[in-house]
Amino acid sequence: MVKGHGTGNDFVVIPDPDGIHDISAAAAAALCDRRMGIGGDGVLRVVRSDRTPEGADFGPHAPEWFMDYRNSDGSVAEMCGNGIRVFARFLVDAGLASPGELEVLTRGGVYRVNLHAEGDVTVDMGRPNRDGYSADVRVRLGSHEWLAEGLGLPNPHAVVVLDDLSVLPAELPPPEVAPAVMYPDGVNVEFVEFAEEVVPGQPHVRMRVHERGSGETLSCGTGACAVGVVVAEHLGVPDGTPVQVDVPGGTLMISIDNLGRVHMSGPAVIVADGWIVPRWWRAHT
Amino acid sequence: MVKGHGTGNDFVVIPDPDGIHDISAAAAAALCDRRMGIGGDGVLRVVRSDRTPEGADFGPHAPEWFMDYRNSDGSVAEMCGNGIRVFARFLVDAGLASPGELEVLTRGGVYRVNLHAEGDVTVDMGRPNRDGYSADVRVRLGSHEWLAEGLGLPNPHAVVVLDDLSVLPAELPPPEVAPAVMYPDGVNVEFVEFAEEVVPGQPHVRMRVHERGSGETLSCGTGACAVGVVVAEHLGVPDGTPVQVDVPGGTLMISIDNLGRVHMSGPAVIVADGWIVPRWWRAHT
Repeated sequence: MVKGHGTGNDFVVIPDPDGIHDISAAAAAALCDRRMGIGGDGVLRVVRSDRTPEGADFGPHAPEWFMDYRNSDGSVAEMCGNGIRVFARFLVDAGLASPGELEVLTRGGVYRVNLHAEGDVTVDMGRPNRDGYSADVRVRLGSHEWLAEGLGLPNPHAVVVLDDLSVLPAELPPPEVAPAVMYPDGVNVEFVEFAEEVVPGQPHVRMRVHERGSGETLSCGTGACAVGVVVAEHLGVPDGTPVQVDVPGGTLMISIDNLGRVHMSGPAVIVADGWIVPRWWRAHT
Repeated sequence: MVKGHGTGNDFVVIPDPDGIHDISAAAAAALCDRRMGIGGDGVLRVVRSDRTPEGADFGPHAPEWFMDYRNSDGSVAEMCGNGIRVFARFLVDAGLASPGELEVLTRGGVYRVNLHAEGDVTVDMGRPNRDGYSADVRVRLGSHEWLAEGLGLPNPHAVVVLDDLSVLPAELPPPEVAPAVMYPDGVNVEFVEFAEEVVPGQPHVRMRVHERGSGETLSCGTGACAVGVVVAEHLGVPDGTPVQVDVPGGTLMISIDNLGRVHMSGPAVIVADGWIVPRWWRAHT
């Protein structure tokens, strides 16, 4: 068992290379329980693809490793942008992969990640989805209403650019988003303000995010990507220009390449390593 | 490093028998950070008394082990009723003490604990303090006001016996307690309802607790003791009769002996064992 986080989005990593642990929804929820278990926003099981149905479905050219991700309520999820950085960092720290380029199979497809010597990890998050989204979404919070831009990455986002984040309340309530028909499965709402450039020519913004199902969080990887896309397009920066996006839990660098693909770079921190006590594990599996 | 809990009150245990780790307030707070660290309500450093100033102050007859307890904000604390059970369980699991009777030095003095074969731990919590407290405390929550009983154990409590806990809101706001002069350092407020006896002759109650500084919690060891004292005295049960106190995080058994000392029995669960990753530790110490 490893505990780690990416910009404050935290995970219990369960190394299971040979696929011998069946982590049920109840076991994942028990592991993520912050007081009775280890505590985390989700569980990342690290398993060889050829030991999983997902790997078998993919065929003989599946990447070596499958990221079996579950949310803290035990439900399976396709992909987690902060989680895959921690997943890749674990593989390298454990000697199961080499630094550099690496492909990871997820329920959302194959993702390419790149582990840098200094510790950060870059993930190719794919192309933003504009189908069915528009640039005149309206977001309401209390007596305030703003125009927002909608996009999918691939999960649904609404990005609101503000003059100043200080107009927001200390705790973000769930924003109302219209037209609701654009977001049948809910929406993550990002609020953004521009900040002074740290590196000249690299846009720098700060954001807060309200995630569907979770409320306000310290970080949302795809939310930072959505913000990076909106900012880069708004400013018309050259392809590959990094946009510095400060989330409450740290900093992510977002860039869009000449193919329109979004690349997210950020930290992946391993805090502790060890094992679940067998008596506890038996009681929860 | 060990992560464990007692009725949902959770701790990071740092084994340091030879007293070589100086855990600063900042390091304790970083360990207790639920997303960037391990996560916990407090840190229990396990150190031989003769390696500590507290042990030296106590003199040659100090118990072998000192419980160096810090709250999640890094501040030192005298004693923690749920924590000392986890502390004792760790000592036995690690082979540093034998099951049975054990004395532990804390900043609040020496406590006697007893580890039972089935896993529960009993702690002699001392005598309740009535000096300066009265039985006509008033507790107000929104439009409700109730009479409460004040006592110290040794930290300050106000116990409210209700017909039905369901009159309370889903989330407990800070109750207003009067006379305020009785509680210059704040107060823990326990709300209690009677439940059906599980073992005939053993009173059974359920409680919720609002702790000063922490808000509503899953468990408060001294709060359960305060409730046990009020219930046992109210019913006039014979000395030594266990009172079953269900807290949101589990069950504690409270009894008062013929010397008026309060004994608390409850679970101590070790969830995981391992080590802090050196790179993380260096960055936080």
